[in-house]
Amino acid sequence: MNNATVQDIAKQSRVAARQLASSSTAQRNLALTKMADALEAVKQHVLDINAQEVAIAQQAGQSAAMVKRLTIDEKVFQTMLSRLRKVAQLPDPLNRVLEGHTNPAGLQVFKKSVPLGVIGIIYESRPNVTTDAAAVCIKSGNAVILRGGSEALQTNTLLTKAMIKGVIAADLPQHAIQIIPVAGHETVSELLKMDEYIDVLIPRGGKDLIKRIAEGTRIPVIKHYDGVCHLYIAEDADSAQAVKLAVNSKCQSIQVCNALETLLVDKNCAEQMLPLLHTAFKEKAIELRGCEQTQKLLPDIAPATEEDWYSEYLAPILSVKIVNGIDEAIQHINHYGSGHTDGIVTQSLKMAQQFEQRVDSASVLINASTRLSGGGDYGLGSVVGISTDKLHARGPVGANELTSYKWIAYGNGHLRD
Amino acid sequence: MNNATVQDIAKQSRVAARQLASSSTAQRNLALTKMADALEAVKQHVLDINAQEVAIAQQAGQSAAMVKRLTIDEKVFQTMLSRLRKVAQLPDPLNRVLEGHTNPAGLQVFKKSVPLGVIGIIYESRPNVTTDAAAVCIKSGNAVILRGGSEALQTNTLLTKAMIKGVIAADLPQHAIQIIPVAGHETVSELLKMDEYIDVLIPRGGKDLIKRIAEGTRIPVIKHYDGVCHLYIAEDADSAQAVKLAVNSKCQSIQVCNALETLLVDKNCAEQMLPLLHTAFKEKAIELRGCEQTQKLLPDIAPATEEDWYSEYLAPILSVKIVNGIDEAIQHINHYGSGHTDGIVTQSLKMAQQFEQRVDSASVLINASTRLSGGGDYGLGSVVGISTDKLHARGPVGANELTSYKWIAYGNGHLRD
Repeated sequence: MNNATVQDIAKQSRVAARQLASSSTAQRNLALTKMADALEAVKQHVLDINAQEVAIAQQAGQSAAMVKRLTIDEKVFQTMLSRLRKVAQLPDPLNRVLEGHTNPAGLQVFKKSVPLGVIGIIYESRPNVTTDAAAVCIKSGNAVILRGGSEALQTNTLLTKAMIKGVIAADLPQHAIQIIPVAGHETVSELLKMDEYIDVLIPRGGKDLIKRIAEGTRIPVIKHYDGVCHLYIAEDADSAQAVKLAVNSKCQSIQVCNALETLLVDKNCAEQMLPLLHTAFKEKAIELRGCEQTQKLLPDIAPATEEDWYSEYLAPILSVKIVNGIDEAIQHINHYGSGHTDGIVTQSLKMAQQFEQRVDSASVLINASTRLSGGGDYGLGSVVGISTDKLHARGPVGANELTSYKWIAYGNGHLRD
Repeated sequence: MNNATVQDIAKQSRVAARQLASSSTAQRNLALTKMADALEAVKQHVLDINAQEVAIAQQAGQSAAMVKRLTIDEKVFQTMLSRLRKVAQLPDPLNRVLEGHTNPAGLQVFKKSVPLGVIGIIYESRPNVTTDAAAVCIKSGNAVILRGGSEALQTNTLLTKAMIKGVIAADLPQHAIQIIPVAGHETVSELLKMDEYIDVLIPRGGKDLIKRIAEGTRIPVIKHYDGVCHLYIAEDADSAQAVKLAVNSKCQSIQVCNALETLLVDKNCAEQMLPLLHTAFKEKAIELRGCEQTQKLLPDIAPATEEDWYSEYLAPILSVKIVNGIDEAIQHINHYGSGHTDGIVTQSLKMAQQFEQRVDSASVLINASTRLSGGGDYGLGSVVGISTDKLHARGPVGANELTSYKWIAYGNGHLRD
């Protein structure tokens, strides 16, 4: 595959995007259900091809975590299907009238949501991104160019082929969904140059991948950087609830961006809380690293260094700090955090409100696990990621977040004086 | 001024931004009226200092257009004041609940508008940008760093000092508004490196300035590229209305981004329309450049080249093309246009709807002058520009467009299964 071919794909997507922009709600929803049907029809083929790629990855000595992410088993496959069908049920993100106004001269103006155009998704091993991303893009009337990891290329190609059948069955353009059909870094480099045809890039993967892409292109990038997530246990927290929330935030899934990385415990409840937390995390085999004061109360834990406060472990490690009140907690979060997801455990409405107003993060949770920040629990359905940007989309990126808008004005010969 | 000082300013803005984020509506509105009062109190000083800078610009042989943009006369000054006071009257862009949802487990989630943080405005000669931009930023709870053109440095510095008095009078942090106090390109280069402290840059000026900034920084940039604006006269257009709209779109102000640059005339009304348009534009001393078919009907006009169709003249020149129906008109606009502002003149609702749905532009106008696209007529009050981006803000950038949002979830011990 030469450079011309990535350009060809990008150009075809551009043409498809124009057609998608004027497609009907019914057509796009039909496409989504047809995509699920077409996938279902090739289920065994997908599982077989995927098993081959999993075997290759294992032989190549890939980590267990990576192999797990690559694997499509029956359960993963059913989730892929059900997400496509659920996205079809969501309200149409397009043609929403977002605001409006009639000027004193009678010019009627309104703002209407429209697709962004062509979206490039660059991702690593998980093949479910292939179907989730395509679902959200089609729902929002965008053409999508998929560029997954080389280890999943055969699986992703097969998934894409099936989804294209669904798109065609709904009379939408076949190039609405395309995949870069070869591996190799040069195809990514070529994609990054396609600013004439691609409206936005969404990289999913490690910080290095995202940084490389954001710095190597003129195309706008929706970035998904790390989640250095905090939970602050206020002095008045219900202690049983606090322990449950801390454990769920940290342990429900370790290697995800909204998992807890630093626990802040108010000094006025530290003596009571820390032994309870210590026991609970010991049961879960989580290593605690504490500030000096924490170490005084829990002498057997390791010290936390300055670097720990900045760390997204994605591992069974948790840093713990005793803070002197809500102000110090908020300062710590705004200084060391990544603005992803942060929570408070408190019974005080005043503290809850202070916390949500002053913590500068995409998601601020009160008496809820940090693991609940995301498209599912926020009612967005499938998402293509959780943005750490402040411009355009912040937090979960669902179908609404893949729209732009246009201003439309209806006049009757209105002139400017 | 050394590099450290631009960094100092950026850091101070960051601190101010945190305080602004939790300021009240009343405080910010009070600041805006106090800013206007403080400016009014130094009016004569502003006019004197500005007159000195105007004289220097004239001696330096600057163009009449540039000198005009630089000049603050009584009328310009009053507009600056009235805009500040009008912005104070607008609804608060902050803390709007944008959407919400309660999940099946009872977790209450909502999305609330918050400031972007620190906004850098890099602009050329017009000193009214100093007050307009500061107004919109303070309204939306953002700290602003102003970096105007060297030819207006004394004027801008004086305006900024007065506005800071207003900010302080409302008990907001003095660093909410800052100006880079020296001229020279190196201060811009330093600003571009401040991605740790600045959340968004908004360059106002020529295409080269915007491009240089967008490509030289990791800070997100809201871009204001050119307006290659079109008006399509459909076959059924009211001819008198069409002439008035074309003339107003082109002539009401020539050197602005939403002025008309290309007129598309349907072939079925060209014979009737073109002589009328020719006469009207002759009266306004506008040079017409036509496609081959146009030249057949108007033999005395110059030919339009391929380059003309891409041109933002910002001059008394208008390119004219005869098109074969609405499809060709839309194709021409989407191909040659810049997605800024495009209009149609028609009496057919069907054509109006087709046009607004398929033209991929920030503003689409039906039977209205292209000059009406903008914050004023759209009800946004003051704006910091008209974005040609699709991500985040598209079209006029007012106070709402300078906000981000956060997700807030209130639970009662909610865990993830």
